[in-house]
Amino acid sequence: MEPRSKLWVEKDGKLALSDYRVRLLRLIDETGSLAEAAAQMQLSYRRAWGKVKEIERNLDVKLVESAAGGAGGGGSRLTAEGRRLIERYERFGAAVEQDLARDFARAFERDP
Amino acid sequence: MEPRSKLWVEKDGKLALSDYRVRLLRLIDETGSLAEAAAQMQLSYRRAWGKVKEIERNLDVKLVESAAGGAGGGGSRLTAEGRRLIERYERFGAAVEQDLARDFARAFERDP
Repeated sequence: MEPRSKLWVEKDGKLALSDYRVRLLRLIDETGSLAEAAAQMQLSYRRAWGKVKEIERNLDVKLVESAAGGAGGGGSRLTAEGRRLIERYERFGAAVEQDLARDFARAFERDP
Repeated sequence: MEPRSKLWVEKDGKLALSDYRVRLLRLIDETGSLAEAAAQMQLSYRRAWGKVKEIERNLDVKLVESAAGGAGGGGSRLTAEGRRLIERYERFGAAVEQDLARDFARAFERDP
């Protein structure tokens, strides 16, 4: 048997962060481009943008800032707050994964 | 912000136990009746029975035994293995819930 879990964070009862959402933000940070992040997640630009706006609305914080286009087109990047948030979420996820495995072993694999 | 999680246990890639499934088994144990447990979960008897059989199949273990009807009709109860399994799952769930809250506080509520 293997334990499984799905993790997310709500604010005022609304979905704020999830593995999926944080992956999108992480990709924006890594690629410097919302279009590229969207493509890597097989999302339309419009849908990815809507997702970012929804996260910002639900958390009431600005997470992504876009530079105006130029020769190479505009880019997008995370705000300091956006970066801090994904780091916290990833730290949270890693800790939960570790604890989950330990809790499962304690509950299931030892004698009563 | 509040952390949320959904927990389940798979065996060989198949869903074996979840909060919902364990709640059904727990109700069979408490009421001594599959019909009553099904009613409390607003499931048809047939659907509840199918769920129990599916859990047993996926775990390859007998969890519920039924007595033949008599004056008061037959009853159902958990096998010793069934009871042990739900106790383990509930212990697992409680530990994860506690760790989740602690991991969230550590990741999100303290400075960096």
